[in-house]
Amino acid sequence: MQRYKCIISYDGTGFSGFQIQPNKRTVQGVLEEVLGKIHKGKRIKVIGSGRTDAGVHAKGQVIHFDSSLSIPVSRWAIALNSLLPNDVSILSVVKIDQKFHARFDTAGKEYRYYLHLSNERNPFLRHFAFSCPYSLNFAAIKEASEYLLGTHDFTSFCSAKSEVEDKVRTIKEIDFIIENDLIIFRFVGNGFLYNMVRILVGTLLEVGTGNREPKDVIKILEGRDRRMAGKTAPAHGLYLWQVFYK
Amino acid sequence: MQRYKCIISYDGTGFSGFQIQPNKRTVQGVLEEVLGKIHKGKRIKVIGSGRTDAGVHAKGQVIHFDSSLSIPVSRWAIALNSLLPNDVSILSVVKIDQKFHARFDTAGKEYRYYLHLSNERNPFLRHFAFSCPYSLNFAAIKEASEYLLGTHDFTSFCSAKSEVEDKVRTIKEIDFIIENDLIIFRFVGNGFLYNMVRILVGTLLEVGTGNREPKDVIKILEGRDRRMAGKTAPAHGLYLWQVFYK
Repeated sequence: MQRYKCIISYDGTGFSGFQIQPNKRTVQGVLEEVLGKIHKGKRIKVIGSGRTDAGVHAKGQVIHFDSSLSIPVSRWAIALNSLLPNDVSILSVVKIDQKFHARFDTAGKEYRYYLHLSNERNPFLRHFAFSCPYSLNFAAIKEASEYLLGTHDFTSFCSAKSEVEDKVRTIKEIDFIIENDLIIFRFVGNGFLYNMVRILVGTLLEVGTGNREPKDVIKILEGRDRRMAGKTAPAHGLYLWQVFYK
Repeated sequence: MQRYKCIISYDGTGFSGFQIQPNKRTVQGVLEEVLGKIHKGKRIKVIGSGRTDAGVHAKGQVIHFDSSLSIPVSRWAIALNSLLPNDVSILSVVKIDQKFHARFDTAGKEYRYYLHLSNERNPFLRHFAFSCPYSLNFAAIKEASEYLLGTHDFTSFCSAKSEVEDKVRTIKEIDFIIENDLIIFRFVGNGFLYNMVRILVGTLLEVGTGNREPKDVIKILEGRDRRMAGKTAPAHGLYLWQVFYK
């Protein structure tokens, strides 16, 4: 038995998220279906670094699976891609120690959120960036983002549906990449709670439009109450960009 | 009665081309449906600068239509976009003289063809660029493209299905824009025949991969025979970029 670590990319538009669910098209479901074919019907379990919601994209999601087939490691990506649908792609496959675990061994993640700053409706970005027709105060957004850096209890920035108990996380970097009329929010942290990046973006946008003061973010963190933070930004602007391991 | 000229953009993926056809989803069909709603069921004919094939995109297609409604010109785009599906967008609407005709008055067009130079399967580009895993000789492609510039009989670069008699066209510019692993072919001309840009790209790619010599293009033009040119490149890499008027 050999464990394989894969970096994968997917367009989340056509998936009901990463995690397998009955009667829904999911990334894990599609991957396990293809692995099942390669293994003549045997179920091969796919473990991801974490879930992504319906509509959320991935540029560098990480998964692992075990196989006893003697396929050379250089052929695995080709074999999988030849059977996978076009909206998911295996970028790389490497052999890895049996002790490696795609979820338990994560040391951090990078997410990016794509914002299209325009009042022109762009048909090519409708699934790939959140369209924002308002002008934003970036100095205010930057100030607010600095209060979010570091280790905090992010209860206010976590879906109330989450069952995770420990909501303390460390955000190491928040910055902004400008590409023409796209603003890309970049978040690097040791881990992110359910909906956390989308609530962070939603709150920063409320700061950017002047509906909140940058310093409000400090009170929101202290309040530990989801209702204090801003709206959850739409899924289709969000990309799981890369996963870091110990 | 007032004539309106509109610049529109669409993601061609979900359309069976521009031109209205029974029981098919087309750009013209969707536009006429929405105009029909605004005009309480009256058919309002939409005239485009020309057709685009199934899967072909537009960043700056031009249409015209006539209306006797007293909607202020600044409100037309908002009114149309609020009823149109997300894969087509009205970028601008201006009042124009009744003598203007979106098809007959064209002075030229610009098309772009997106090529993704990578052997990595990119789920985000699957509908938006043609993926080419081979390394290309750009000096050879540039040399070949210079033989195509100017006024020629482009019979060899026109679908054999075309019923147009005069196949003489003038290509004014061919150049290449490099954006990371994307190569964008840019064609500006006074007019383009059915499938012409896609056959030009298919032939230039055969030059780029070394399957043809740059000078072969001269013989292909002189032969006036579609079978002498290269394959028709796939529709999903092609964008009608802008339309010029007299």
